[in-house]
Amino acid sequence: MTLLERFYQGDKIALSKIISYVENQSSEYRQVLAQLYPKSGRAYRIGFTGPPGAGKSTIVDKLTSFLVKENKMVGIIAVDPTSPFTGGALLGDRIRMQDLTNQESVFIRSMATRGSYGGLATATKEVSIVMDAFGKDFILIETVGVGQVELDVVNACDTTLVILVPESGDSIQAMKAGLMEIADVFVVNKSDREGANRIVTELEMILDIRKKKGEWEYPVIATEAVNNKGIDQLLNKIKEHREFITGHKIFEEHRKNQIKGDIKKILELKVRELVDSRILKSFDVDQIAERVFRCEDDPYSAVEKVLKQVKITN
Amino acid sequence: MTLLERFYQGDKIALSKIISYVENQSSEYRQVLAQLYPKSGRAYRIGFTGPPGAGKSTIVDKLTSFLVKENKMVGIIAVDPTSPFTGGALLGDRIRMQDLTNQESVFIRSMATRGSYGGLATATKEVSIVMDAFGKDFILIETVGVGQVELDVVNACDTTLVILVPESGDSIQAMKAGLMEIADVFVVNKSDREGANRIVTELEMILDIRKKKGEWEYPVIATEAVNNKGIDQLLNKIKEHREFITGHKIFEEHRKNQIKGDIKKILELKVRELVDSRILKSFDVDQIAERVFRCEDDPYSAVEKVLKQVKITN
Repeated sequence: MTLLERFYQGDKIALSKIISYVENQSSEYRQVLAQLYPKSGRAYRIGFTGPPGAGKSTIVDKLTSFLVKENKMVGIIAVDPTSPFTGGALLGDRIRMQDLTNQESVFIRSMATRGSYGGLATATKEVSIVMDAFGKDFILIETVGVGQVELDVVNACDTTLVILVPESGDSIQAMKAGLMEIADVFVVNKSDREGANRIVTELEMILDIRKKKGEWEYPVIATEAVNNKGIDQLLNKIKEHREFITGHKIFEEHRKNQIKGDIKKILELKVRELVDSRILKSFDVDQIAERVFRCEDDPYSAVEKVLKQVKITN
Repeated sequence: MTLLERFYQGDKIALSKIISYVENQSSEYRQVLAQLYPKSGRAYRIGFTGPPGAGKSTIVDKLTSFLVKENKMVGIIAVDPTSPFTGGALLGDRIRMQDLTNQESVFIRSMATRGSYGGLATATKEVSIVMDAFGKDFILIETVGVGQVELDVVNACDTTLVILVPESGDSIQAMKAGLMEIADVFVVNKSDREGANRIVTELEMILDIRKKKGEWEYPVIATEAVNNKGIDQLLNKIKEHREFITGHKIFEEHRKNQIKGDIKKILELKVRELVDSRILKSFDVDQIAERVFRCEDDPYSAVEKVLKQVKITN
């Protein structure tokens, strides 16, 4: 049996191998993705972001348990761009493993780095396509921190959760970090702590100002994830959001825009690779530089000449 | 008389117009640069970087006065990526204007933003090519702050000065920020302040460890720029460095590597523009996205098809 055949039969090891294949951009990984892409599109992607220590992993874990009880297949991707040596991300896995990895329907993957072309956000999307094609119903994508990579990652999700804690200033921090714009559902975790009511009220006030008729009403859910409190309400809100965006064609629109972005990005990467491999190999950059240095040519005209001579097609 | 004719006759207004032309990437600005490039290569580029408040502008001003006394033509580029609305950079100009702008041989330009393609570092290099072709003997490039853009800017210079102040921790900060690797000459400015001797000694110790036989010996110059102290020694060191790198073919090597980088960057930008204008315009991305969304195609195969059909030449 080929690797892909085993993959389609639900072999977790095959899934794991293909993810590594894609993640490491092994030769012809794009052909594999091309084959899997049409089998994807069924899974619902939920993004989790927020400051470190907000309890994202715990919420992901508890939500997963609820989904498993509903006989859903769950894929989890933990994205940690701050840990290039996967230390942080791996730790997260190890803690969760006890609970979740022995569940047949759950698959966890950590991601921290990416090869030469394309960033971590692209890699995350590619891995989610693999999980999607594998038959996952839900893909939960958790990011560590609140940088640009994380925003790109969760922006590609269907429902995005921003998880905050009652510590003072968090709602303002969230606004500063651009989190308010990307959240579909706000979670105030560790809601047993002091100040929880205040931040919930604060957020609701801010969201109330933004409220527009006929649009999704951004909810704020208080949770206490370690004690499994509020998780069922959270899951219901996610389902509500899913229904809302599906009903209002927002889901379709968003997915299509995502795909358009993907196409452009793939096109750009592909062209850049072609430039690197074709043009720079077949042309003597040293010699051109030598001529430019001796003022016999200029780089602009030199590039024009190169492009005229080489036809960059595949 | 055409603009270029006036430019070649030393008309400062023509110089100013052409710089704006290049800076704003007006249509056919590359053709203009292509014409000017072979006339450039004569000017010596000195880069100035270091933490805010170190006195970079003052040092640039005082050095300029020395160079003007030697009948040299000086161009100054003040690069401030932190001030997109040119506020900071303009302020710097205004202060200097009184001293320098009425000097016939000095030309000052502030740069803060860049158009759609290519970054501030590329723009700075392009403006320096214009000044170079205009006949400047020295181009002094001053950066505000110590970010990546600034490193890229001064890396393109022939001699790079890192300017520090006696405030504690500065030598360690400098190492952290990657300044140690790019400096050819270290300046401890405001050397009348407490701790000046300590930081000079600290730097000399660090540099002594790195010293290799036959290589340039990185000097540390103490200055008190506002009082014009140490500026003559600094200028002598810069000249010494120039002689050293010219004699050891380092100058030639460095310039050629710069040119190679330029060629690659121009090639990449050009190809990206072609992708944007040719491919994305002539192909219906919406339609492809629609097909992908309906799982009738995948973005990877779609891109392959596009590239096969279009020949990306000029």
